[in-house]
Amino acid sequence: MAHRVDHSPEKTRPRWRQALGDLIFGLETPAARLYDKVLIVLIVASVIAVMLESVSGLSAPMRATLRWTEWAFTLLFTLDYLGRLLGARRPLHYARSFYGLVDLVTILPSYLSLLLPGSQYLLVVRALRLLRMFRVFKLARYTDQANLLGEALTASRERITVFFISVLTLVIVFGTLLYLIEGPENGFTSIPTSIYWAIVTVTTVGYGDISPKTGAGKFLASLAMLLGYAIIAVPTGIVTVGLQEAKEARQGRLCPGCGLGKHDPDATFCKRCGASLPSQSSP
Amino acid sequence: MAHRVDHSPEKTRPRWRQALGDLIFGLETPAARLYDKVLIVLIVASVIAVMLESVSGLSAPMRATLRWTEWAFTLLFTLDYLGRLLGARRPLHYARSFYGLVDLVTILPSYLSLLLPGSQYLLVVRALRLLRMFRVFKLARYTDQANLLGEALTASRERITVFFISVLTLVIVFGTLLYLIEGPENGFTSIPTSIYWAIVTVTTVGYGDISPKTGAGKFLASLAMLLGYAIIAVPTGIVTVGLQEAKEARQGRLCPGCGLGKHDPDATFCKRCGASLPSQSSP
Amino acid sequence: MAHRVDHSPEKTRPRWRQALGDLIFGLETPAARLYDKVLIVLIVASVIAVMLESVSGLSAPMRATLRWTEWAFTLLFTLDYLGRLLGARRPLHYARSFYGLVDLVTILPSYLSLLLPGSQYLLVVRALRLLRMFRVFKLARYTDQANLLGEALTASRERITVFFISVLTLVIVFGTLLYLIEGPENGFTSIPTSIYWAIVTVTTVGYGDISPKTGAGKFLASLAMLLGYAIIAVPTGIVTVGLQEAKEARQGRLCPGCGLGKHDPDATFCKRCGASLPSQSSP
Amino acid sequence: MAHRVDHSPEKTRPRWRQALGDLIFGLETPAARLYDKVLIVLIVASVIAVMLESVSGLSAPMRATLRWTEWAFTLLFTLDYLGRLLGARRPLHYARSFYGLVDLVTILPSYLSLLLPGSQYLLVVRALRLLRMFRVFKLARYTDQANLLGEALTASRERITVFFISVLTLVIVFGTLLYLIEGPENGFTSIPTSIYWAIVTVTTVGYGDISPKTGAGKFLASLAMLLGYAIIAVPTGIVTVGLQEAKEARQGRLCPGCGLGKHDPDATFCKRCGASLPSQSSP
Repeated sequence: MAHRVDHSPEKTRPRWRQALGDLIFGLETPAARLYDKVLIVLIVASVIAVMLESVSGLSAPMRATLRWTEWAFTLLFTLDYLGRLLGARRPLHYARSFYGLVDLVTILPSYLSLLLPGSQYLLVVRALRLLRMFRVFKLARYTDQANLLGEALTASRERITVFFISVLTLVIVFGTLLYLIEGPENGFTSIPTSIYWAIVTVTTVGYGDISPKTGAGKFLASLAMLLGYAIIAVPTGIVTVGLQEAKEARQGRLCPGCGLGKHDPDATFCKRCGASLPSQSSP
Repeated sequence: MAHRVDHSPEKTRPRWRQALGDLIFGLETPAARLYDKVLIVLIVASVIAVMLESVSGLSAPMRATLRWTEWAFTLLFTLDYLGRLLGARRPLHYARSFYGLVDLVTILPSYLSLLLPGSQYLLVVRALRLLRMFRVFKLARYTDQANLLGEALTASRERITVFFISVLTLVIVFGTLLYLIEGPENGFTSIPTSIYWAIVTVTTVGYGDISPKTGAGKFLASLAMLLGYAIIAVPTGIVTVGLQEAKEARQGRLCPGCGLGKHDPDATFCKRCGASLPSQSSP
Repeated sequence: MAHRVDHSPEKTRPRWRQALGDLIFGLETPAARLYDKVLIVLIVASVIAVMLESVSGLSAPMRATLRWTEWAFTLLFTLDYLGRLLGARRPLHYARSFYGLVDLVTILPSYLSLLLPGSQYLLVVRALRLLRMFRVFKLARYTDQANLLGEALTASRERITVFFISVLTLVIVFGTLLYLIEGPENGFTSIPTSIYWAIVTVTTVGYGDISPKTGAGKFLASLAMLLGYAIIAVPTGIVTVGLQEAKEARQGRLCPGCGLGKHDPDATFCKRCGASLPSQSSP
Repeated sequence: MAHRVDHSPEKTRPRWRQALGDLIFGLETPAARLYDKVLIVLIVASVIAVMLESVSGLSAPMRATLRWTEWAFTLLFTLDYLGRLLGARRPLHYARSFYGLVDLVTILPSYLSLLLPGSQYLLVVRALRLLRMFRVFKLARYTDQANLLGEALTASRERITVFFISVLTLVIVFGTLLYLIEGPENGFTSIPTSIYWAIVTVTTVGYGDISPKTGAGKFLASLAMLLGYAIIAVPTGIVTVGLQEAKEARQGRLCPGCGLGKHDPDATFCKRCGASLPSQSSP
C-alpha cells in the first residue's frame, strides 16, 4: 500500500535514472537478472580474494595480482553504489537502509588503506561483503524462504530466549562445579575458563584442549554431556513448531465479516465473528 | 480462584507494605518494571563479579574493587529480600517458596565468609544467583513461554526417561566391550572410564583424550557413533511432539454446537459450525 | 484374547505358586510393586559392583567386599529366577522368552567363574543385567511409552534404512578421497582407517586423533562436516513424523461398518466404507 | 503413461532377451528377486575387498587372493552389464541412464589397470560401486521411501540453500575475527585455515587441532558454538516440515461432495461427508 503513495516524486526523476534503477533494483527483466548474477559472481570472487591474501606462503607476483584484483573489485562496487544512489526512487532512503550501509561499508576499507598503514585490521570489515549475498538472493524465490525462516525465528523469539537463559545457567553451574572439583592443576584455571569448557562440552563440540581428569570431574562432565545431548532437542522442537506456525499464518484466508486473517485450513466459519469463510483453494 | 479467597487478611496489611509489594512483585506499573530491570542488571553484574574473582592474574587493586562490589551487591540483595518479606501478602509463604529460598541462599555466602575462612568453597552457592534470572523474566511474556516449554517437557517426561535408560544401557554395553577389546594399555583403564569414553562418543562430544587404537575397537566405536548420531533424533521427535501436545492442550475448549474440540486460544466462534464458544479461562 | 483361552491348565497350578506368580509377575498389588522396586535397586547395585571391580586402584579389603556382594547378588537373582519358573503360568514359555533368557544368562557368569579361571571375560555378559531394567519398568507407564517409541521406530524402519545406506555411501566416498589426498604420512593409513575418520567427522564426534593436514584435505573435510551437520536433520524429521504417525494410529476409533481402525481425529465418516463413525471422546 | 507408448518396438526383441530383461530388471518373480539379492551381496563384498586392499600390513598370499577376487568381481559385473544391455527394452536408453553409467564406470578401473601402472588412483572410482546399492534397493519398498525423502529435500531445497548461505556467512565472519584475534602464533595461520576452524566448531565436530588460546578468542568461540548448537535446529525443522509436506502432497485428492482436499492414501470415502472419492493414481 505505502509504495503506491509516493507516485508524484516519481515524475521528477529523469528517464535514464529510472532505467538505471530498473536495471539495478529490478528483478524481472532479463537485463536486471543478468546484473544480479554478475554481481553475485563478483562478490564471491572478492571474498575469495580477501581470504587468499591472508595465506602466508604466497609468491610476490601472486600477491601483486591479488592487490590489483582488490582495486578492480573496489572500483566495480563503487560504481554499483553510485548507480544505486542515482537509480533509487528515494536515494536517502536507500543510503540509510541496511543494505545501503553495507554497500558503503564494504567499499571504504580499500580507500582507507591509502590513508592508513596496517590495513589488515580492516579485514573484518571486508568480510561483511558477504552479507550482500543475501541481497543478491532477492533475485529469486530465496528471499521469500529467508523471510519464512525469519518469521519462524521471530515467532519463536521468546522460547529461544528462555532456552538460551537455561543453557547459560546450566553452563555457569557446571563450569563453577568443575573449577572447584578439578582446579587449576587440571587445566580449569579460572571460572571463565571452566565456563568455556562447559560450553565446549554442552554444545558437543569437545575440542579436548581441557578435559576432566578426576573421577568426580568425569562423572559431572558425563552428566553435562547427556544434558547437552538431550537439550539440543528443545531448540529443534521450537523451530519446527515455529516454522509450522509461520507457514500456517501465511495460508491466511480473510474473513469477509471481520477481516481476521489467520484461519486453520479446515475452518468453514470465522473463529472470531462466526461469518462463513470463502472456500479454500487447493494448496 | 484461590487467589481471591484470602481477601480478608489483605485488610490487615498496612498501606506502605501494599505499595512496597506492588513495586517489588508487581508487573504492570512502570515503577515495578523499572525495579525488575534494575534487579536483572544487578544480578548479571554480580554473577560476572563472582566469575572474575576466580581469574588468577588479577592485580591487587582490581581484587579489592571486586571485594567491595561483592559487598555492595550483597547489601542490595539483602534489602531486596527484606523488601519482599515485608511487601508479600503472605511473608511465610514467600520465604518457603522456591524463589524465596534462592533469594536467601544467594545472600548467605558473603555473610558466612565473615565467620569462615576459605570462602572460595561457597562459590558454587554464589552461582545459584543466576537462577534468579528466571524470576526476573516474570517481568515479561517469558514465564509464559518457559511454562509452555515446561509443560512440553512434563508431557514428554516418561518418553524422556525411557530414552535415557536406553542411552545408559547402550553406553554401559559399549563401554564394557571397549574395555575388554582395548584394555588399560590404550587408555581404557577401567569400566567406569570406558563408560565415560562411551558417553563422550555417543553424545558426539568427542574430546579425543581417550580413543580406540585397535581395528576392532575402531569398528565398535564407529557403530557407537552412528547409533549416537541417529539416536539424537529420538529426544528431538519427543520434544517436538510434546510441544505440539502442550500447545493443543491449551486450546482445548469443546464447541457446544458440533462438539469439535480443537480451537485456537483466540477463537470466539467454532470454526466448523459457527456456534459461539465458551469464553476461555485465562491460561 | 489369547490369554483367556488357557484357563483350564490354571486349575492344576497349586495355590502357593499362583500367589508367587502374582507377587513376582504382578503389577497391581502393593506387595508386587514393592518386589519390583527392590529388584530394580538390586539390579542397579549389581551393575555398579561389576563396574567398580574393574577399577585398578582398589584396596584388597574393598576387592573382597565386592566379591562377596557379587555372590550375594547372584544368590538373590537365582532365587528370583527360580521363583519366576515356579510362579509362571507356563514355565517353559517364560524360560524361552527374551526376559527369561536374560535372567538365566545374567546369573550364569558367577557360577562359571567357579569352574573356569579368567572370569573377567564374562564381564560383557554381566553388563547384560542392565537390560532387565526395561522389565522392571513394566512396573509403571514406562513400557507403554517404550512401546510407542518402538512403534515410531518400526513405522520409520524403511526410511531409517535408506538414511543409513546414504550415510554409509557418503562415508566410504569421503574416506577413500581423503586416503588418496592425505595419504599414510598424515595418519590416513588405509581406507578402513580413513572411513573410521569419516564416520568420526560426519557424526560430528571429532576426536582429533586423525585430522587432515593439507589444504585440499581440509576443504573436503569441511564439506563432509557441513553435510554431516545438515544430514542429522533427516533422521530427526523421520522420527518426529514417525512418532506422530504412531500416536495417531493409537487414537484409533473402530468403524462400525468395516472395522477399519485408523481414522483422523476430525473424521466423521469411515474413509474406507463411508459408514458413520462414533463421535470421538475428548483426548 | 509414457511407458505404454513404445509397445511396437517390443515385438522386434527376441524371446530370450525379454526373459533376460525380466530376470535382471524385474522385481516380481522369485528369480528376479534372487538375482537382485545375489547382486547386492556381490557389491558389498567387492567394496570390502577394495577397502582391504589398502591396508598396509597384509601378507603376500592375502594380497594375491584379493587380486583374484577383484578380477572375479570384475568379470561378474561385466556379465551383469552385458546382460542389462541385451535385456533392456531400449539398450541405448539404459546405457545413457545414471545407473547405466555407474555400471560402466565401476567395471572400467580393473581393465584400465592392465594398461596403466599405478592403478591405485582408480580407487575412488571403485568406491562409486557402492552407489549401485541404491539400485538394488529397488528390489523392495526402499525406493519408495528414498523417493519420499528425496521429495522432502526437494520441497525444502530453497530453505536449505538459504540455511547454507547463512552458515557460510557466519563461518567466514567468525573465521576472520579469530584470525585477527588469535593470529598465526596460535595456529590460526590464514583466513582459510581460520574458516576451516570455524566450520569444525560451528558444526560441533571439534577436532581440537586448532583451538583458541586468548580470552577474547575463547569468548568468540563460545558464541560461535552456541550459535552452531542452536542453528542445527533450523535444518531439522526444515526437513521435518518438508517431510510432512511431501507426505501430504501424496494425499491430495479432492472430495467431489464437500471439496475437502486432504485424504489419506488408503481412503475410499470422504472422512467429512462420506462421499465416494476418485480412485488414486499410483504415486
